[in-house]
Amino acid sequence: MLVNKHQNIIDNAVKANHERTFYSQYPEHPKAYGEEAHARGVQSYQQLLGKPFKQLLQTGETGWSGEEVSPYTREVLGVTYPVFTVTDLLSKAAEAGKSWGLLPVAERAGILTETLERIKDYFFDIANATMHTTGQSFMMSFQASGPHANDRALEAVATGYHELQRYPPNLTWEKPMGKTSIKLYKTFRPVPKGTGVVIGCSTFPVWNTLPGVYADLVTGNPVIVKPHPKAILPIAIAVSAIQQALRDSGYDPNLCQLAADSSENLITKELCEHPEVRLIDYTGGNAFGNYIESLPGKTVFTEKAGVNSVILDSAKDLDAVIQNLAFSVSLYSGQMCTAPQNFFIPEQGVGTDNGPVSFNEVVQKFKDAVVGLVNHPKMGAGTLGAIQNEATLSRAQEARHLGGKVILEGTPVVNEEFSNARVCAPTILEVSSADTAIYEKELFGPVILIIKTRDTHHSIQLARQMAVKYGAITCGAYTTDHEIKEKITTEMNSVFTPVSFNFTGFIWVNQHAAFSDFHVTGGNPAGNASFTNQEFIVKRFVWVGNRELAE
Amino acid sequence: MLVNKHQNIIDNAVKANHERTFYSQYPEHPKAYGEEAHARGVQSYQQLLGKPFKQLLQTGETGWSGEEVSPYTREVLGVTYPVFTVTDLLSKAAEAGKSWGLLPVAERAGILTETLERIKDYFFDIANATMHTTGQSFMMSFQASGPHANDRALEAVATGYHELQRYPPNLTWEKPMGKTSIKLYKTFRPVPKGTGVVIGCSTFPVWNTLPGVYADLVTGNPVIVKPHPKAILPIAIAVSAIQQALRDSGYDPNLCQLAADSSENLITKELCEHPEVRLIDYTGGNAFGNYIESLPGKTVFTEKAGVNSVILDSAKDLDAVIQNLAFSVSLYSGQMCTAPQNFFIPEQGVGTDNGPVSFNEVVQKFKDAVVGLVNHPKMGAGTLGAIQNEATLSRAQEARHLGGKVILEGTPVVNEEFSNARVCAPTILEVSSADTAIYEKELFGPVILIIKTRDTHHSIQLARQMAVKYGAITCGAYTTDHEIKEKITTEMNSVFTPVSFNFTGFIWVNQHAAFSDFHVTGGNPAGNASFTNQEFIVKRFVWVGNRELAE
Repeated sequence: MLVNKHQNIIDNAVKANHERTFYSQYPEHPKAYGEEAHARGVQSYQQLLGKPFKQLLQTGETGWSGEEVSPYTREVLGVTYPVFTVTDLLSKAAEAGKSWGLLPVAERAGILTETLERIKDYFFDIANATMHTTGQSFMMSFQASGPHANDRALEAVATGYHELQRYPPNLTWEKPMGKTSIKLYKTFRPVPKGTGVVIGCSTFPVWNTLPGVYADLVTGNPVIVKPHPKAILPIAIAVSAIQQALRDSGYDPNLCQLAADSSENLITKELCEHPEVRLIDYTGGNAFGNYIESLPGKTVFTEKAGVNSVILDSAKDLDAVIQNLAFSVSLYSGQMCTAPQNFFIPEQGVGTDNGPVSFNEVVQKFKDAVVGLVNHPKMGAGTLGAIQNEATLSRAQEARHLGGKVILEGTPVVNEEFSNARVCAPTILEVSSADTAIYEKELFGPVILIIKTRDTHHSIQLARQMAVKYGAITCGAYTTDHEIKEKITTEMNSVFTPVSFNFTGFIWVNQHAAFSDFHVTGGNPAGNASFTNQEFIVKRFVWVGNRELAE
Repeated sequence: MLVNKHQNIIDNAVKANHERTFYSQYPEHPKAYGEEAHARGVQSYQQLLGKPFKQLLQTGETGWSGEEVSPYTREVLGVTYPVFTVTDLLSKAAEAGKSWGLLPVAERAGILTETLERIKDYFFDIANATMHTTGQSFMMSFQASGPHANDRALEAVATGYHELQRYPPNLTWEKPMGKTSIKLYKTFRPVPKGTGVVIGCSTFPVWNTLPGVYADLVTGNPVIVKPHPKAILPIAIAVSAIQQALRDSGYDPNLCQLAADSSENLITKELCEHPEVRLIDYTGGNAFGNYIESLPGKTVFTEKAGVNSVILDSAKDLDAVIQNLAFSVSLYSGQMCTAPQNFFIPEQGVGTDNGPVSFNEVVQKFKDAVVGLVNHPKMGAGTLGAIQNEATLSRAQEARHLGGKVILEGTPVVNEEFSNARVCAPTILEVSSADTAIYEKELFGPVILIIKTRDTHHSIQLARQMAVKYGAITCGAYTTDHEIKEKITTEMNSVFTPVSFNFTGFIWVNQHAAFSDFHVTGGNPAGNASFTNQEFIVKRFVWVGNRELAE
């Protein structure tokens, strides 16, 4: 039985969720999956191109559609996906959900772990598909859409496994009444809320989608995956693996359906507004996210955009700091929701163990580090990846006209492997703290703003204000002063923003580790949900208690 | 230290919350509190009448106001309460919340348990105040506003104590990197969301208020209690006890403020819409509840109105069933949110161990039982209590004109102790299943509808539909048929309504026991929250994780 087969994985994940020390079920090193895996993945991916994607177990499509373009080759992938009507998707979801919702959570967790094991077989196919839809480097594509996404999914499964078994399924309640008593036989059922929809984004089509998918499924709800029309293939492969594993284990593959649409015929609103849809997970821009959050009668989980800050106060080794930050801002060209955008640096500069470094010198060092990294023959292209779409590229290239002082222009960078890749250096602007019109917004992509402040207290005030007004997912801070550290922690935490202090070396503010770091707190405008706290799970089902007078 | 003083109470409550077997910290028998307590409570209550209520530790009032009328004597209580501006209340709450939010939850749970112990000293004062504002009988007033409310409050404290200690406050995370590793020092903080407002109702001014108050406080948030202007005194006594215990233990009494207002100058909207208010608990009617739920940027917990059904299919001993139901509908004249309103009975009658009983005979037996109970010299007045307000009384008395067949008219009933009491017998109407205009709404107060259905499947269908459209907090069902029982369970649970089967004797569908029964599921229009599931607690704070590179 699958429940038992994967019990060890589930138990480890439940334990890891609670202890929050380092844990990973799926190794992040490609080599852990065998020497052949990489080459086989490239081949499998290439065999998918230019064809209808027929690996899904869904039937009744009304047509086929596909419009993906590789940010590396700028050529269409030519893959088309079956298109279904909203009513068809919903009736199949409801039908599949009926028996699923009545299963014990241990059984659901068992089969869901089996589906994750099945996805593992496709990690390299998914990696190539992710690379050529999102523009991520191969390594990031592999890690984010493969082991990291699976770990995040398992985290949700484990949280569900724990939460739904929190109360005894049945018990006898006996109330003393003097010499006698009243006995009731009681049962507690975690009743699933209903069909879920998970709306994906174009930059992290698997990593941001799987947690919602597995949270819906483990709590007993059927789920419909609505990918971004420009980044379908990675999640289509994952969904087809899930469907195959469900079918092979005797469950209805329609528990997890893919609802591909096209830019010209988007179905997201029709889907979300349908009364049968009770749960919505969303990753994407603020305008649509706010609309999703405003829908009455829905339980909604969002990750929208925030503006992430770095507060630079003092450091032991400024060069190590600058190297770390240059990598953080360059990684996937600032297209990570965790990437820092606004750097607050005091006008008097930054204190170090070797004495103070002036503001201008810090800026110069930062520029030099970024230029050195992006033009590095071995590291540049792999760090930057490619820019997912034209709009982001032109916005980044136009950023030099935003105002302030141009420190670095977003000039093109050569990718030796893909000469046509959509890639440019980050634009770096220096602005004054009065230039709120420039820095008080998210500038998605490779745009970095250095804001000159009166002092670190002023930096904290501005970073805090940004988080209140526009949301923040991360905050990086560098200080050797204990009191400043406490103040940054208190102020940023008070606006529900986590702080990463003094990161240097091989750890970056952009990274959130499954089973340990919560991703997005849910407390500020950057999103209302968090991977994976209790809320992410308990809002998807309802405890219902029944009672019967015992004979 | 208070943390340790009450550790045993807290540990027991945490255990009870999980096991959900019978548990009570505060005995529900008045005699458990000593022979003198009752008389002293009457006296203390009478000394409060006709005076300003000066027991609160709040200062800076702009005036005094009070408009309570006893449903038993129909005389004004003459108690006035200090009135404060919204900005004053909010600035004091914010100030008090600052240090409170930083305390370890164990310390908060300790002092909060101390406040509950202090409220216990006022149980009999609160009971009399409840009686003469809500119209509840003395016994219900004592139990609901005293031990039951305190147990529900402790339940919230214990859930908070458990949830906020779920993750380690700090730990070292070490990620292996080949021959070396990366070490991060991590902390996890449950950051309180901000000032809470708890809006009370006129029928259960303490029972429905304390859970939200203690849920806010245990999660680190200051709270403002906004009572119904017609039922302030019971909760004013409780809040003053809380404030005194806080002050005596060295905490700011403004952590829990009373915000009395008047019917002519209601402050609820101004309070709720203020951006500093982040949490709102509400008990009351649907229209205002829907407005509260629609406020953007607030975390809202509601208990609104539902329409509760009884499904009568078959019974071993019909007379015992009828006695139980007659008591359920008469108890506090149908003014409990858990009281049944719609009785679905098949046209072919009800099967019993002694053969079938016709529909008309069931109706006659029910009428006879209600008439017998309400006119019973020892039980009638105490069961009915009094009707809280004139509007409910006239609606009940006009109910005979709603349509259908009048089975029992809401004629006056004599209360020997209070000749002027606002009291009448329940109105019972028999309607057809087509009369949806009559039974598809909440008729708050002593109005009972008997709906003739085609068969029990039809009854289930209608009861389910009522819960979907109008919400339901309880469902009573009587059947000796296993399959029917399963069907009722599945269908009613699917619309998030709990079912109580075959209650006879000294247990009624109206009762929800703390530490065992969830009160309201939160899954249908009767309310979005539940006393006390995980959601009731975890939505009041945000997990924020900080990281620092370990040296």
